[in-house]
Amino acid sequence: MANISKKVSWSGRGDDRGERTPLLNGAEDGKYNRHVLHFVFQSLDYDNSENQLFLEEERRMSHMGFRCLETRRWVICGLIGFLTGLIACLIDIAVEKLAGYKYSAVKQNIEKFTEFGGLSISLILWAVLNSAFVMVGAIAVAFFEPIAAGSGIPQIKCYLNGVKIPRVVRLKTLAIKVFGVICSVAGGLAVGKEGPMIHSGAVVAAGVSQGRSTSLKKDFKIFEYFRRDTEKRDFVSAGAAAGVSAAFGAPVGGVLFSLEEGASFWNQMLTWRIFFASMISTFTLNFFLSIYHGKPGELSSPGLINFGRFDSDSVQYNLYEIPLFIIMGALGEGNATLSMYIHRPCLQVMEAMLVAAVTATISFAMIYFSNDCQPLGQDNTEEYSLQLFCADGEYNSMATAFFNTPERSVRSLFHNPPGSYNPLTLGVFTLAYFVLAVWTYGLTVSAGVFIPSLLIGAAWGRLFGILLSTITSSQSIWADPGKYALIGAAAQLGGIVRMTLSLTVILVEATGSVTYGFPIMLVLMTAKIVGDYFIEGLYDVHIKLQSVPFLHWEAPPTSHWLTAREVMSSPVTCFNRVEKVGRIVDVLSNTSTNHNGFPVVPGKICGLILRSQLIVLLKHKVFVERASSRLSHRKLQLKDFRDAYPRFPPIQSIHVSQDERECMMDLTEFMNPTPYTVPQETSLPRVFKLFRALGLRHLVVVDNENRVVGLVTRKDLARYHLGKDGLEELHLAQT
Amino acid sequence: MANISKKVSWSGRGDDRGERTPLLNGAEDGKYNRHVLHFVFQSLDYDNSENQLFLEEERRMSHMGFRCLETRRWVICGLIGFLTGLIACLIDIAVEKLAGYKYSAVKQNIEKFTEFGGLSISLILWAVLNSAFVMVGAIAVAFFEPIAAGSGIPQIKCYLNGVKIPRVVRLKTLAIKVFGVICSVAGGLAVGKEGPMIHSGAVVAAGVSQGRSTSLKKDFKIFEYFRRDTEKRDFVSAGAAAGVSAAFGAPVGGVLFSLEEGASFWNQMLTWRIFFASMISTFTLNFFLSIYHGKPGELSSPGLINFGRFDSDSVQYNLYEIPLFIIMGALGEGNATLSMYIHRPCLQVMEAMLVAAVTATISFAMIYFSNDCQPLGQDNTEEYSLQLFCADGEYNSMATAFFNTPERSVRSLFHNPPGSYNPLTLGVFTLAYFVLAVWTYGLTVSAGVFIPSLLIGAAWGRLFGILLSTITSSQSIWADPGKYALIGAAAQLGGIVRMTLSLTVILVEATGSVTYGFPIMLVLMTAKIVGDYFIEGLYDVHIKLQSVPFLHWEAPPTSHWLTAREVMSSPVTCFNRVEKVGRIVDVLSNTSTNHNGFPVVPGKICGLILRSQLIVLLKHKVFVERASSRLSHRKLQLKDFRDAYPRFPPIQSIHVSQDERECMMDLTEFMNPTPYTVPQETSLPRVFKLFRALGLRHLVVVDNENRVVGLVTRKDLARYHLGKDGLEELHLAQT
Repeated sequence: MANISKKVSWSGRGDDRGERTPLLNGAEDGKYNRHVLHFVFQSLDYDNSENQLFLEEERRMSHMGFRCLETRRWVICGLIGFLTGLIACLIDIAVEKLAGYKYSAVKQNIEKFTEFGGLSISLILWAVLNSAFVMVGAIAVAFFEPIAAGSGIPQIKCYLNGVKIPRVVRLKTLAIKVFGVICSVAGGLAVGKEGPMIHSGAVVAAGVSQGRSTSLKKDFKIFEYFRRDTEKRDFVSAGAAAGVSAAFGAPVGGVLFSLEEGASFWNQMLTWRIFFASMISTFTLNFFLSIYHGKPGELSSPGLINFGRFDSDSVQYNLYEIPLFIIMGALGEGNATLSMYIHRPCLQVMEAMLVAAVTATISFAMIYFSNDCQPLGQDNTEEYSLQLFCADGEYNSMATAFFNTPERSVRSLFHNPPGSYNPLTLGVFTLAYFVLAVWTYGLTVSAGVFIPSLLIGAAWGRLFGILLSTITSSQSIWADPGKYALIGAAAQLGGIVRMTLSLTVILVEATGSVTYGFPIMLVLMTAKIVGDYFIEGLYDVHIKLQSVPFLHWEAPPTSHWLTAREVMSSPVTCFNRVEKVGRIVDVLSNTSTNHNGFPVVPGKICGLILRSQLIVLLKHKVFVERASSRLSHRKLQLKDFRDAYPRFPPIQSIHVSQDERECMMDLTEFMNPTPYTVPQETSLPRVFKLFRALGLRHLVVVDNENRVVGLVTRKDLARYHLGKDGLEELHLAQT
Repeated sequence: MANISKKVSWSGRGDDRGERTPLLNGAEDGKYNRHVLHFVFQSLDYDNSENQLFLEEERRMSHMGFRCLETRRWVICGLIGFLTGLIACLIDIAVEKLAGYKYSAVKQNIEKFTEFGGLSISLILWAVLNSAFVMVGAIAVAFFEPIAAGSGIPQIKCYLNGVKIPRVVRLKTLAIKVFGVICSVAGGLAVGKEGPMIHSGAVVAAGVSQGRSTSLKKDFKIFEYFRRDTEKRDFVSAGAAAGVSAAFGAPVGGVLFSLEEGASFWNQMLTWRIFFASMISTFTLNFFLSIYHGKPGELSSPGLINFGRFDSDSVQYNLYEIPLFIIMGALGEGNATLSMYIHRPCLQVMEAMLVAAVTATISFAMIYFSNDCQPLGQDNTEEYSLQLFCADGEYNSMATAFFNTPERSVRSLFHNPPGSYNPLTLGVFTLAYFVLAVWTYGLTVSAGVFIPSLLIGAAWGRLFGILLSTITSSQSIWADPGKYALIGAAAQLGGIVRMTLSLTVILVEATGSVTYGFPIMLVLMTAKIVGDYFIEGLYDVHIKLQSVPFLHWEAPPTSHWLTAREVMSSPVTCFNRVEKVGRIVDVLSNTSTNHNGFPVVPGKICGLILRSQLIVLLKHKVFVERASSRLSHRKLQLKDFRDAYPRFPPIQSIHVSQDERECMMDLTEFMNPTPYTVPQETSLPRVFKLFRALGLRHLVVVDNENRVVGLVTRKDLARYHLGKDGLEELHLAQT
């Protein structure tokens, strides 16, 4: 029903001095500017630069050395899982504690005032508490790290796809994210804490695998081998998987999420390691939560969200229910794009506070005006059941939905026995929560969209189930509205995020029962097909709004018309094998082109060298003249490149004197001597396949004589996409 | 504990005339000839030949056309799932019926003779019934389609890896396989019906997706677009997944199996389609079995094997049990290679009959000599419980293990309450069944190794659990030996097949509970690590025994020393753009080289043409002279290539007259004008990555001037592997 999207620039503050890049302004005026790709985003290089230094190192390494590396990879994955689990645990406990205090205080207050009147004071208390929590969280996000806003899933998708999003995997981002999500969930916003776990896991992975923190200026001198995009990407995949695993108790779902979003090339050992990280993550969370809950060793809470156990009797579904499920899948679709254009941090914080207060008010009003009393069960699972105006031994059923963390509300909707909810209550709740969720999603707070989607879906799903049993009036067959709540939740979530296999598995793992696999799959498939007809999924809309050059799985089917000659960028700036330093500096300093990869040629192509490599060479003054004059000069090693990774200094910060400009630089040793090349006649789908399957950053186009005629980069491929009327070409924005 | 392997040549009878290829003899004398790769195996081409014909067709196709194609792919996947589910259903019902008759007959007979003596008659009856079933199955396999022997999983692994195994996806193979597996399971052999389902699914997929059956000489003229290796491979992946799904009720496990074995390039839509096929398959099986069991619509048997529901109380495990699980994982390892060298069909059938009779005899002896009586429970799940010499109201517990289909035995071991089995009974059973399973695995019958592995593992696992509870003598903690049976089964199966992620998911799905995911993963990982230290998994041993050029995920880590120059085959036979027919015929007829791909050159590389394409061109006499003389001559279309696919006629069957030999053939339109090329200095890992990621068959090595200097094919890459002492090179056998 909802496909909500907001507009927050990921590029955040363009550099470390706190100023904004032109991109942001560009995004502001170009309202829904789908038809632009930005140059701002750089690519990651998932193809190793197999230069001489690299080959020498690999050749020196013994069989045993490779074994050690492999062992280290496993250790890192274990650590990633462990730390991600710990973070999930921290978030869970903090939210539970804070929300507990808040609800207890408000509940006491409400109970005090129910008899004597004056509930408006309770409302104010509630609203103030909410706003206070949200304010703290929003300040942290808006003022210190805007990229920590939202769930972070689109950013991780882009990272795994090969787009470098600035600041996305930094330690500071992680800290703000964790702090922010605790505040916004405790502040009662219509948000979940699951999405941010995926981002958190990815940051943990990026940090641990590099064995250092640039933010903390601490280098542990370990895992240096892994300091390159290829290796780092693999670990970030594992981190994202560990995050999903901790969030939903779904280790297999986590692996599939990573693969669906990230992996272009499936590798058995890698997958197995990702799975290991996921398992460790859910296990760690489970273990520490069991200690926290005072039952050490009883591993019963594998994820942040626990759908509860569907008991075996209600778990059956019948064949004739399947068409109904499909209809529900189609319902879980629709679109409400709400773009937020508030960009001043102060206003962002105030907006967030306002939403928190409004949430409290709406909730309060809903509870206040509903007189849907239900008898208290023996095994009452609501922790904060409100009696309010109900008779003794009864509770207000609207309060179970609003006066509670969203996770608990979802669980109640799935499992409470038939008759727990009044249809009208559910209908009003669905609408109110939907509006709140859409508004909330535009806020500058760290928060996920999974739980609100599930909650809205569960509410209307349960309503659907109740109505169904009223219509058919045969209680026995449609007995369990909880089943429809589950299907509704799946439909709603599927309609919003459009994940496929991984979401099915996540939901199956979260329910702990494989029986619903088939209907959940049907529902998700319907939701995706119907949804894609109208608009792309939330994350993809987001990615498009940011004009990120995102590569999909395949080239558009009708793109066989195009060949490498048409899509490539040309002319290409090339360097000679032995090149003058002055020319290199000039080319690198040219901000209008800002190229990142340069074919090396004397006539024919004989290599490819990257901007980052040239920067390191310039920094170390690896000039031919110096090498011959000073014999003691240390030979540049792979270690020097690794130390500079990933934050290579800009060319402006490197001082090259006028004398040095006349020196020569020999690139032979440092360039990749065997870059992938394609002839000019190669069709776009073929170029695309090669590019995507190998995770390339630059693909050299050569003529029949092996001379460089062009260079294909990510943006050249990403700009072709399939519109309603066939192939469309996006414009390239130069800002 | 067991890693059993047998030696049956997959090449079967080399051609359709029933004669054996030289390969078989080669395999006979070269006992365990790991260090050879055979030329006999051709490769599949997962890289489209993007020639002019193809590009023209693609360019003609509208956006709508591609949508239709996509819809057709979904329809095919649905059909694959449906048919695979039906086949699983057929096998299940047939086995249940036949085994039911057999056991009823024997049981009646035993009951008749227990009081009066003369049980030897019962034994003979049992042995004869077993042998009769097995004989029929073995005759079918040995005489009509030897490739249907075994589970077929290694063959499907090879197919998905890109190796063409003759006759493996034919309709006849499917028929014999299904018939054979029914006979061997009903015949009481120590085999399962799950493995063959994977093969069956793959055959169904290969058949349905091509829209025709060459065996039945029936062409439905549909799905012609899919008649090439790339598309067919995708469907075969879906078929294999559907097979796993039907066998174990594990749709996600099925998808992961296909991906683990087959996919080199992950594509979201493809994965989603594979998942669809899997879901349909388990659903179909479930639906028809529910009708068969008289409870239509109650979908409770998702797979051929049903591990039963682990109930929530026993499903917990404790932290301190994890080291025990790991120890069990390590136990699930070991190796017993039994190579069978019987190759005459008559002897094979007789051997199979002998094993069937011996199985009956051993079983009978075990039951007869055990006096382990257990009280009959109220909810007795054994269908054929034997009282034998036990008191009234008791049954012989050994009989539950032996006098039953293996699936039921596994379920009993998992779920029967503590105290159902005597430890001695279990010990003897494990040993006896182990010996039987190893022997049976060498037989020429269609049968899988999953169930016997699970059964052996479950038996020693349960034994382990019982001993543990005896040692600790605290019944409460180690209460449930069924849990250890499950872990033992996982360890044993993991030690034999060495699958990783997919097996974890399959077992989790089959138990219907995600709680055991973590221990199962640990156990499988331990089993794999310990196992790989000794010998490769069963399937890999099999593949090596057959000298198949199988490509693993990555090049051996220490292979950076090697470059394309060293690994490539050279000199290369090239053709000119316009080539003399005589030369083409001569080259193709040269049996000593038997090349399949030819670079097209006038000096520089300008294309690549395949043997199969040349054959079609020769067959249709596409000569330059003819085109100019007869204007009415129909232009060759892509359809002509598709009609000939996949059984292109041998060159010998194409008659080319002496006059025609002097004609010229213009290859421009038919060759792939943009083959992938690499320079000579490219390192082996880089070549490997390109080759594997794109599923290539031929990779052209060029020099600096773009002149062809060599050709890398599958065997050039597969021959390097990591031995104990570093990189080893296999020899290439020319036979």
